[in-house]
Amino acid sequence: MSLLDDTCAAIADVDSEAAASTQRLLDGKTKPRRSLGRLEDLACKVAAITGRSPPPMPSKAIVVMAGDHGVAEEGVSAYPPEVTWQMLLNFAGGGAAINVLARQVGARLVVADMGVRGPEPAIAGVRSCRVRTGTDNFVRGPAMRREEAVLAIEHGIAIAHELANAGTSLIGIGEMGIGNTTAATALLAAFSDEPAKNITGRGTGIDDATWTRKVAVIEQALAVNRPAGKSPLDILAALGGFEIAGLAGVVLGAAARRAPVVLDGFIASTAALCAARIAPHAGKYLIASHCSLEVGHRLVLQLLGCEPLFELGMRLGEGTGAALAMPMVEAALRIVHEMATFAEAQVTDTGR
Amino acid sequence: MSLLDDTCAAIADVDSEAAASTQRLLDGKTKPRRSLGRLEDLACKVAAITGRSPPPMPSKAIVVMAGDHGVAEEGVSAYPPEVTWQMLLNFAGGGAAINVLARQVGARLVVADMGVRGPEPAIAGVRSCRVRTGTDNFVRGPAMRREEAVLAIEHGIAIAHELANAGTSLIGIGEMGIGNTTAATALLAAFSDEPAKNITGRGTGIDDATWTRKVAVIEQALAVNRPAGKSPLDILAALGGFEIAGLAGVVLGAAARRAPVVLDGFIASTAALCAARIAPHAGKYLIASHCSLEVGHRLVLQLLGCEPLFELGMRLGEGTGAALAMPMVEAALRIVHEMATFAEAQVTDTGR
Repeated sequence: MSLLDDTCAAIADVDSEAAASTQRLLDGKTKPRRSLGRLEDLACKVAAITGRSPPPMPSKAIVVMAGDHGVAEEGVSAYPPEVTWQMLLNFAGGGAAINVLARQVGARLVVADMGVRGPEPAIAGVRSCRVRTGTDNFVRGPAMRREEAVLAIEHGIAIAHELANAGTSLIGIGEMGIGNTTAATALLAAFSDEPAKNITGRGTGIDDATWTRKVAVIEQALAVNRPAGKSPLDILAALGGFEIAGLAGVVLGAAARRAPVVLDGFIASTAALCAARIAPHAGKYLIASHCSLEVGHRLVLQLLGCEPLFELGMRLGEGTGAALAMPMVEAALRIVHEMATFAEAQVTDTGR
Repeated sequence: MSLLDDTCAAIADVDSEAAASTQRLLDGKTKPRRSLGRLEDLACKVAAITGRSPPPMPSKAIVVMAGDHGVAEEGVSAYPPEVTWQMLLNFAGGGAAINVLARQVGARLVVADMGVRGPEPAIAGVRSCRVRTGTDNFVRGPAMRREEAVLAIEHGIAIAHELANAGTSLIGIGEMGIGNTTAATALLAAFSDEPAKNITGRGTGIDDATWTRKVAVIEQALAVNRPAGKSPLDILAALGGFEIAGLAGVVLGAAARRAPVVLDGFIASTAALCAARIAPHAGKYLIASHCSLEVGHRLVLQLLGCEPLFELGMRLGEGTGAALAMPMVEAALRIVHEMATFAEAQVTDTGR
């Protein structure tokens, strides 16, 4: 069997008994029952995912994957394709938003070149997983060959295993790739049957004319690649991108290792949707951070059954929302570990 | 002039030029313009409040004030009044939710006994500002005498000055006091003219019969104390509590020192509303953390013109929401300080 097949086979259902056990621990703490609301749900979800109650305090990493998109030549972005490569250098230099936020929350940052255009020098701090220098333009045929998609996914699985082996127990995912809201929207259209115009957003900030072109490009991609009836893997190959496939692999690998994955924005969440279509139990290992301004994001989260923790009008990607959510996950777990019980603190418990 | 009068006179308008300057700094960073959404607004708001661009990274504290309420004898809570005192000991022992979350975010925790029932031993870690052992039952007359309310406010102002003198530049506020959602709801009814039944919530988790009694108690308190036409200070004295007045003082003191105040739930936010009614500019120094399950909270935030950063179904108080919001405030400021500009990172800037 392949690494992908092995990994999918290793993804088990989550542990509802561990979740119930963590809720019982929370119910003994010195606060009205359930008064920490979704923070309590979060602790229970991590218990279910890890299969441990109380779930241990996490060691954190954020995986940012970059890739270029053939469809960028259709003029669907407000930024030129060379920005993907430039931002990869910016990640390596520590100057991008995700560098700042990963430092703040104490998360290790793993940056991977999954298929960026341009030269491929060894960049310190960037892991080379380059499948090819950008996908093909999917208005004329599939973005990737099936084997390329599998290779990208398996790079992601390998990274997840490596992180898990090093003790990482909470993995955020983020991305960079000029043109990748177009790819993610095409994937969402294929997985949801929603018309492209209803789920196409402004990406990096495109004007009305570009938006109209972007919708037409996505419709054309769907007409050419005819996703209906195809397998999730084939849909991902036809309409996705190397970074999207790679992140789907991170989700699959993390799920196989029972590590919760913190989603970021529209593209990272769509990558997780691909993973959940490939291996349905994988969808239970996800924690949604935010709902972004990108119009399709809410639908992706609905399809995943994930409710976002906050909604701040963000639309940057890179894993920035995932980083912001990590202190909330830690807060939820710390409450389970450190709060006193009614008995310990000798506080009157009315059971309410 | 009194400390209260001096403080109100010292509260200036916020600095919109500093906010605009910080937005210009953010617009130069390697990301699409405004793509960090409300995180960018947050950085600009702190610039406006502090009058500095970029605003410095904050040193953080959370002030939790406890007080008892005469109205608790009407049976409006799911917990008995002695829980206020028991929780004060729990705060001192480090076992309450706010202890856990303050430790996580690296905020100094200041716990003050503003007027708790029971013995007044010196408790290590609790600041004694006790005005009296609980307010009077406001269904029969004012909760506090005017001088008592002023004393509680001035304790809060003194704490804010002390914190500012020690370098604290971001102050969260929280509370504990059995019966205090009843007091806060009465204050909100007085300040908003909203009927009590529309804004009365479940507090610590009361049943329907207790809720009906709580509404009747608030209506009676309003009938007896007749807030219409009274000054904000007199309304606070009639319907508030020692911890609510104290937190209003913290807000006034912080505003006078240009330190942003991070609100918590319904009661802390209502205390801030009292401060904003006493000194209107003070309302501009506030950052809303969450919107709680307590039904009146949304209206309080609307009256303050504050949009919450998240909504997690919390209803614990103690400053727990304020603690969770602090990493977001820090993230916003860190972005301003640490992100590379387009020029520094040599990333193509299309101005979008």
